[in-house]
Amino acid sequence: MKRNVLIIGAGGVAHVVAHKCAQNNVQLGDIHIASRTLSKCQAIIESVHEKGSLRKPGLLQAHQLDAMDVEATKFLIRATRSQIVINVGSPFLNMSVLQACIETGAAYMDTAIHEDPAKVCEAPPWYANYEWKRRQACKEARVTAVLGVGFDPGVVNAYARYAIDSYFDSVDSIDIIDVNAGSHGRYFATNFDPEINFREFVSTVWSWENNSWKANQMFEHRKEWDLPVTGKSTTYLTGHDELHSMSQNLGVPNIRFWMGFGDHYINVFTVLKNLGLLSEQPVRTARGQEVVPLEVVKAVLPDPASLAPGYTGKTCIGDLVKGSKHGEPREVLIYNVCDHEESFAEVGSQAISYTAGVPAVAAALLIANGTWDVGGMVNVEELDPAPFIALMNRMGLVTRARHDGQDYVVDPQQQVVERSSTDKVVNSR
Amino acid sequence: MKRNVLIIGAGGVAHVVAHKCAQNNVQLGDIHIASRTLSKCQAIIESVHEKGSLRKPGLLQAHQLDAMDVEATKFLIRATRSQIVINVGSPFLNMSVLQACIETGAAYMDTAIHEDPAKVCEAPPWYANYEWKRRQACKEARVTAVLGVGFDPGVVNAYARYAIDSYFDSVDSIDIIDVNAGSHGRYFATNFDPEINFREFVSTVWSWENNSWKANQMFEHRKEWDLPVTGKSTTYLTGHDELHSMSQNLGVPNIRFWMGFGDHYINVFTVLKNLGLLSEQPVRTARGQEVVPLEVVKAVLPDPASLAPGYTGKTCIGDLVKGSKHGEPREVLIYNVCDHEESFAEVGSQAISYTAGVPAVAAALLIANGTWDVGGMVNVEELDPAPFIALMNRMGLVTRARHDGQDYVVDPQQQVVERSSTDKVVNSR
Repeated sequence: MKRNVLIIGAGGVAHVVAHKCAQNNVQLGDIHIASRTLSKCQAIIESVHEKGSLRKPGLLQAHQLDAMDVEATKFLIRATRSQIVINVGSPFLNMSVLQACIETGAAYMDTAIHEDPAKVCEAPPWYANYEWKRRQACKEARVTAVLGVGFDPGVVNAYARYAIDSYFDSVDSIDIIDVNAGSHGRYFATNFDPEINFREFVSTVWSWENNSWKANQMFEHRKEWDLPVTGKSTTYLTGHDELHSMSQNLGVPNIRFWMGFGDHYINVFTVLKNLGLLSEQPVRTARGQEVVPLEVVKAVLPDPASLAPGYTGKTCIGDLVKGSKHGEPREVLIYNVCDHEESFAEVGSQAISYTAGVPAVAAALLIANGTWDVGGMVNVEELDPAPFIALMNRMGLVTRARHDGQDYVVDPQQQVVERSSTDKVVNSR
Repeated sequence: MKRNVLIIGAGGVAHVVAHKCAQNNVQLGDIHIASRTLSKCQAIIESVHEKGSLRKPGLLQAHQLDAMDVEATKFLIRATRSQIVINVGSPFLNMSVLQACIETGAAYMDTAIHEDPAKVCEAPPWYANYEWKRRQACKEARVTAVLGVGFDPGVVNAYARYAIDSYFDSVDSIDIIDVNAGSHGRYFATNFDPEINFREFVSTVWSWENNSWKANQMFEHRKEWDLPVTGKSTTYLTGHDELHSMSQNLGVPNIRFWMGFGDHYINVFTVLKNLGLLSEQPVRTARGQEVVPLEVVKAVLPDPASLAPGYTGKTCIGDLVKGSKHGEPREVLIYNVCDHEESFAEVGSQAISYTAGVPAVAAALLIANGTWDVGGMVNVEELDPAPFIALMNRMGLVTRARHDGQDYVVDPQQQVVERSSTDKVVNSR
């Protein structure tokens, strides 16, 4: 069954999603792109045509939409007969777009947790503050809603599920590690929307320790890892979406998120934060204008999409899982390495956008063919990770595992080196 | 003759000016304070009463005024029968207030050069772009206008004049050195209006070298000085108002301005500048709001006046003059040291405001008693420095000289150690 897709948003991730939908439009139907700024949608469509990404001739259409407007979004879903909505717009839109999907029956996906512009770092688990309040409504409407299906959150949730089921009898800790060892050559830039990027770091850093929430400060805990390809990498304990569902769904007592930061990033961030320029609360200028400082910082920083052409180097993102198997302690790193230049050559985006966009399209394909069309709201760790990982291997994001001196490609639908007869694939609920 | 004074502005310098006018109201008449925000004028008046600064009972009155409005300013000058206007408001106001003075006959003074909000670092000499265009109008109206009579510009111009006339046969270079070795205990703050402070450093740094303008970059030239009291101090070549008149009036081939900066200040400044947050040109936020980044930075930084209570340490500002006397090379430092805590104890301000405000009031007293009432527009180096320096010695800013192993108080109206019979006092033009 072919399903029309509506992409909401026209930033860096939307760009990748459009290209990847086009490359896979044999399994999808029409592709629509909607955002507040029509010209940005049109630019994406031009890029798709330039790169010849459409696998077969098909409809690719741009729409102007304020996705905070539920009625307008419902109208567009119906007018385009879209059955899958890939929301890769601002996280401020999630609840509005989700509502439009519930009311029209379209499947919903996003790649980041809902945020209220006026609030930063609410009480954990964050999903309970917004998305999970619509779980019952999704179930009643039999609407599939896959939350947070970018790379992190998204793939790292699937990696956790896959590692638990395939490599361990019991798991004690999961450390999610996200390192961008690339270089964009600019004085300073964030790799995705600066407003959203900084909001991650300005307040309490939640980690899941001994089965309960622990509040930490940003840059309080530093750790060096020796990662494949990117080598020795310095990271800091960071708050992140996936902890807020994985802590509730996996039964693992310790889950932490570590993000790589260079000294320069930390210096710029520290200056901006200490001056109050990362605040989402408005200030009043001497001329009496009400301004949100963070919005001004966003306005002066480079558009993340503009970084792509000169970006070099690689990202390495994965889960370091520790536990035991057959009574022996064990440690497995399951990870992906993505190259900025290769991503740009393929779809005109850097690796940060690429790693976030490809999983969303893989999920759309799994919904379209029924594998993940579960008729309810789920986080990624609640779904069968095997078809997802296998599909991404063929879409440009290859999963690898490193443990016990081995380092190999994981292909769950072919053969897994480590899988024993007692391992079982967990089905989606 | 008693002269009523109208103070325009209600910031840190205005605070000092009001206190010092009050302390000297035996020689002045009524004191009026006007700014856009009435409550700030009222707060200054309260402080004057609290400290008992009024030497004798006298009128002290607050007024709401938009000093960009020439007619409103003229009305207030006439209504208060003010004969001296001390403009210590934003430098954006200079030309409007000057015009109001020319049309009403009131004497005009300010402590910083006129600026256009939309332009930074125009072609030198800066005074020729604005103030000096009104020179003829001042002359015709017989209006005294003393430009830039704070500490720097102002006192340092008088120091240059005084040094040239009293210590040298010929002068080769004047290095103006401004070091604040104080500590306000905050993460970061500017010592006066951040908008004006940063505008000094964001563009070309002009210096006067071999009788012509040289363009430099900010933080390009670094120099350590061994100063009295503050000791070894690191400074950087900086663009500053006084070079733009001193270069034209003194016949000295090399005039440079050096400002002290700590590494932390430079780091914060560098981050903000490189990100584009010090720009006076508006940017558009994602929400479509037009915002001037520099105004937002100003809004988040501490109000300079709020730093005063906890400020400790001292400033050292002066002129290092090099030339020859009787055929021998000679080097004289003429300078002032001001203490933050002492300034606060006396008038409730830190030393940066104190050193800028006291000279303005000294100038007002010299205009009031006729000494400096020249009936035209002048920069400070065109006036007789002796009565000015002598008066400030008694008002809280003591001038000292260091040369040839000596270090002593300069009191030009008593006796100058170095003055020979061939030295002459230069009269105001």
